[in-house]
Amino acid sequence: MSAKFTPAKRVADQKQDVWSIINEAAAASPIQPIVNMGQGFFGYNPPQFIIDAAKSALDRVECNQYSPTKGRPRLKKAIADAYTPFFGRKLDPETEVTITTGANEGMLSAFMGFIEPGDEVIIFEPFFDQYISNIEMPGGVIRYVPMHPPPDGAERTSSAGNWTIDFEELEKAFNDKTKMIVLNSPHNPVGKVFSKEELTRIGELCLKHQTIILSDEVYDRLYYVPFTRIATLSPELAQITLTVGSAGKNFYATGWRVGYLIGPPHLIKYVAAAHTRICYSSVSPLQEAAAIGFEQADKVGFWDQAVKEMKGKMDRFCQVFDELNIPYSIPDGGYFVLANLAKVQLPDNYAFPDHVKNRPRDFRMAYFLIVELGVAAIPPTEFYTDERAHMAEDWLRFAVCKNDDVLEDAKERLRGLRKYMIGSA
Amino acid sequence: MSAKFTPAKRVADQKQDVWSIINEAAAASPIQPIVNMGQGFFGYNPPQFIIDAAKSALDRVECNQYSPTKGRPRLKKAIADAYTPFFGRKLDPETEVTITTGANEGMLSAFMGFIEPGDEVIIFEPFFDQYISNIEMPGGVIRYVPMHPPPDGAERTSSAGNWTIDFEELEKAFNDKTKMIVLNSPHNPVGKVFSKEELTRIGELCLKHQTIILSDEVYDRLYYVPFTRIATLSPELAQITLTVGSAGKNFYATGWRVGYLIGPPHLIKYVAAAHTRICYSSVSPLQEAAAIGFEQADKVGFWDQAVKEMKGKMDRFCQVFDELNIPYSIPDGGYFVLANLAKVQLPDNYAFPDHVKNRPRDFRMAYFLIVELGVAAIPPTEFYTDERAHMAEDWLRFAVCKNDDVLEDAKERLRGLRKYMIGSA
Repeated sequence: MSAKFTPAKRVADQKQDVWSIINEAAAASPIQPIVNMGQGFFGYNPPQFIIDAAKSALDRVECNQYSPTKGRPRLKKAIADAYTPFFGRKLDPETEVTITTGANEGMLSAFMGFIEPGDEVIIFEPFFDQYISNIEMPGGVIRYVPMHPPPDGAERTSSAGNWTIDFEELEKAFNDKTKMIVLNSPHNPVGKVFSKEELTRIGELCLKHQTIILSDEVYDRLYYVPFTRIATLSPELAQITLTVGSAGKNFYATGWRVGYLIGPPHLIKYVAAAHTRICYSSVSPLQEAAAIGFEQADKVGFWDQAVKEMKGKMDRFCQVFDELNIPYSIPDGGYFVLANLAKVQLPDNYAFPDHVKNRPRDFRMAYFLIVELGVAAIPPTEFYTDERAHMAEDWLRFAVCKNDDVLEDAKERLRGLRKYMIGSA
Repeated sequence: MSAKFTPAKRVADQKQDVWSIINEAAAASPIQPIVNMGQGFFGYNPPQFIIDAAKSALDRVECNQYSPTKGRPRLKKAIADAYTPFFGRKLDPETEVTITTGANEGMLSAFMGFIEPGDEVIIFEPFFDQYISNIEMPGGVIRYVPMHPPPDGAERTSSAGNWTIDFEELEKAFNDKTKMIVLNSPHNPVGKVFSKEELTRIGELCLKHQTIILSDEVYDRLYYVPFTRIATLSPELAQITLTVGSAGKNFYATGWRVGYLIGPPHLIKYVAAAHTRICYSSVSPLQEAAAIGFEQADKVGFWDQAVKEMKGKMDRFCQVFDELNIPYSIPDGGYFVLANLAKVQLPDNYAFPDHVKNRPRDFRMAYFLIVELGVAAIPPTEFYTDERAHMAEDWLRFAVCKNDDVLEDAKERLRGLRKYMIGSA
């Protein structure tokens, strides 16, 4: 084949990603079916009032055709109304909200809207893996700043809030080329909700360095400690912050691909322009359903119920770690929990395949859990640079957004870890 | 606001596009409601069996969650099966088909998958406007080659096939940097279906210059003369061609955002990789509905009915041009018709707004039709470079994918043109 058919560098690297490694191992495991606590999709349906809204939208001609590129007016208004109480001022649906094809394409649109080749973007480790390619696509350069795990994370369970930022390290990451910083709260995979104090300090640095804040808040309706939105801390911060949300995460429908950004008109305008060039417009009937979702959620008590249910699942699942004396970071929000499996001793000479053997210890643990116990979880070093992967090599990420019987099944299987624990008889 | 908040160049140009010019003029017209024959959305719903399929998908947990990034296996199989007869060999759904978020994001994924900064892409004028930004996003350089209108286009009606390519001009556009060429058949806005002979000659040039063919065939189920798919002309062409399709166009649902690419594994692989980085995955319940659509369309006679209905609408609408003695290009396919309004005399000193006055004559005609007759159409010079806009300044594009009563209403309004015709009493 001619050299002229070679792919662009941005896609040429076909290193196997964590999702396909875990899915392939799961498919090949001798234990079937696998209990999949890996990817963060819901094991149950969106609430019926939203399913019904989607079905009724499908009967309406205009809900099956192109929506305006910036989103359906009804959805923009529903989101502006839903977020106005948090922002403490009336949001303008026409200039301060724009709809995207999922939060992922929304973040890409933000990078495409503002990053020129060589501009720098600060992100924290661990990071959501799509950030990397999305920043690099417009030519952005990434500055990584670590979140430090609790020093006693291998010994005892404590709040996910104990994963901390070293503000000296953060300040050093800023320079004249810094254009944006990405925040994520509630955080995936750590489960940390950034405190008001932390966000205030981060915000001060961003104001000082005139840096756009892209705040990924897709788990914003699932928090178990007080949750602060950085855009709401001051009018100055509101002027430099793009807040990212996800109807798919909010309404248990990760396959709907309806995301949104909220921010000042001078930023939203260019996110919308980039989105128009990337996807043109977003899926119409499910935008309409999401609009109805935001209109009705408070009235039917959905948000409160969502928190209560997910916290219940978290407590139900984590009980097995308490039982096994496996430490974990108690999530402040979201639906992921990081457990520290330093105490689990992998058998010597275990036959790991090459693409797992050469990765950090968490990949070997994840493989071992799939093959020996039939439980899939995600190794978090995938969300680190090679240099800092060692920081997370004893941890595994479990998604608890599954039916309770699945969680009980997972717990029963994980009890099989007992015989591999250091110090076990 | 600090210079650090300036947008990237790729989105900074906020020249008003044709869609917003036409929509704003329509909203401000003294005649309300406007008959909108501008944008190519359908004025009616998808067929009931596909709506029903979407509704039943919404009841299934896995159809509301993330799909595999390359698309739902059922949809890839349904498309492979549907296209196998055209390609004359069994298509592999796993390696030769990939699903995208509409054809638009599918084409962007192809450009992102193969274009490095400085690589050249050949496109024909007139072009679908999104091609431009999608090629420029990865740094591609565009070489334009004109389609020549019929020389007697202002005097008499003839086939859209009479818009021709000068093959010497085309050959000159190729060079060492040429990486891709974009074809579009059936063509928007011309309505031309490229003949087998034309495609064979284009294909020979692409093989000689080792150029990837991106064949935009989103109107592939609407043709009124024999339709050839360039990928099917020879095994050699199949190896260098990516065929782009659209479930939204096929099933009257432009707001569903389900597109697909068919091609050899060594090309499809990188389109899929780029798509994963852009949108991650595409909308799940509507992928499932599209799968059922492709599975059942032949059995229920949908494709034949679609052609018959659209050709009926085309004939019904164009009858008003025959009546007024306004020449047009009889479409070979698709749902757009270009009419030549050279004979329509715009009143001297008509009060055109500045953003219309400074554009070619077709923008002034489109504005005039909206304000004086209440009919919206699209000025095709938007789909030309400034240098060649004069080639199309007497034409307007009408979309006929509307209900018959709407078409009759449009005809009645267009009869009002009679008094502006050159030579009228």
